[in-house]
Amino acid sequence: MAGTYSHTIGPRDIDSTRRARIAALGDIVLGAANDDADSLGFGVSDLNLGNASWVLSRLALEARRLPERGERIDIYTWVSDYGRVMTTRNMTLSSEPGSGGEPGDTQGVWGAAVTQWAMIDLDTRRPLDLSALSNKGTSLVDREPPIERPRKVTPLPDECFGERTVLYSDIDFNGHVGSMRYVEWMMDLMQAEWLRGAAEGFRLDINYLHEATLGETLTIARADQTRFEIRNATGVAICRARFVTGETGNRR
Amino acid sequence: MAGTYSHTIGPRDIDSTRRARIAALGDIVLGAANDDADSLGFGVSDLNLGNASWVLSRLALEARRLPERGERIDIYTWVSDYGRVMTTRNMTLSSEPGSGGEPGDTQGVWGAAVTQWAMIDLDTRRPLDLSALSNKGTSLVDREPPIERPRKVTPLPDECFGERTVLYSDIDFNGHVGSMRYVEWMMDLMQAEWLRGAAEGFRLDINYLHEATLGETLTIARADQTRFEIRNATGVAICRARFVTGETGNRR
Repeated sequence: MAGTYSHTIGPRDIDSTRRARIAALGDIVLGAANDDADSLGFGVSDLNLGNASWVLSRLALEARRLPERGERIDIYTWVSDYGRVMTTRNMTLSSEPGSGGEPGDTQGVWGAAVTQWAMIDLDTRRPLDLSALSNKGTSLVDREPPIERPRKVTPLPDECFGERTVLYSDIDFNGHVGSMRYVEWMMDLMQAEWLRGAAEGFRLDINYLHEATLGETLTIARADQTRFEIRNATGVAICRARFVTGETGNRR
Repeated sequence: MAGTYSHTIGPRDIDSTRRARIAALGDIVLGAANDDADSLGFGVSDLNLGNASWVLSRLALEARRLPERGERIDIYTWVSDYGRVMTTRNMTLSSEPGSGGEPGDTQGVWGAAVTQWAMIDLDTRRPLDLSALSNKGTSLVDREPPIERPRKVTPLPDECFGERTVLYSDIDFNGHVGSMRYVEWMMDLMQAEWLRGAAEGFRLDINYLHEATLGETLTIARADQTRFEIRNATGVAICRARFVTGETGNRR
């Protein structure tokens, strides 16, 4: 089974150019994942009965442009595979004809994402065996990911570009820093010129390696302008990301 | 004319208790204001033709509870008056029966907001005369605000509790710090106990006095735990807010 979820780009999603911020686009994509898991009966609200929750492990997000204020985007999403501890959920992003979508796009698709999720026990914070999920068989769709799966991002040199203390507004429903909050922190270190370029097309690969929780002090390392590593106070990498702009070569 | 806009509380809206954060609730309310202004033909997208934009001047937001993850909320909104430089837009917040709304509520209404807006010229950043708006007559609804209008928040003593540098992710479509970003910064200074209490009912009054833009360093003053003033580097107050918890006495 696959589903389509819509979102209209509103004031909270956009920057001063009135196009979606990359982190907001990510939030919209993760919201659709959440809604679809709910409708399949193993969303966070179902899982919590067993005190478990999905956590994002890796994400690849590509777009040939950033959608505009007022543009309605449709997120088509499906689960393509389950491993023992990881499942892969895919998305394509398109726009309604006439709402800002580019007519030359194949069926209006201008973006795509591949997400990999683990399920953790909320007490032990350890991954669970996905074979315990009873209804996963019916949810699988035999359709390849629309773009290259999330790449592994390699460790960065030991250089610090910024520091953040984890505060209330950074924490999500899983009790750790929200996936897109890290992306916001990275975007805050980008040059205006890079941000302008990203509006014409980008790819993001992000790996979530460990959790960060309230009160922790994190450091942000950056290399080559567009590779990031966020570390906790003991130097452990919390997440790593790599951004590329320009022709992303989306497969569709 | 009045309109109703719906939003389902998703992952990006909630904190670790799985209820909406106050700042997210504010964003949802402002999103409905934006959508309704658009549908009346003087939304930001129309105004930009004349290089003008609505900016929030004051907000009062009350709720008897904070909505839960997956709950669909309906925002009913109407404009009750226009002055020469300010217009008042009202909202009531209710939930669909069965989606988490409390059955004892009058028609399911559990929250309300009153917002006051000015229109500024985006070049000069000065307020415009609202008599220039040609179609405002048809938009007025003869219905009083559902709660007390936003109160004036008085200046705070000269005490500093925190500092923030304005970064890319803080900036909204008007090119200044987003209205709810200030609320996030205030919430980050609240005690966990206060946050738990606010989930049972709160009122927020916030006054936006001046703009803050990219790169500015702001200081945050706090008094009596729940009154805030955010100032720029020259000591000018950018915004002031006051939070109250407990029985808010919503009029409906």
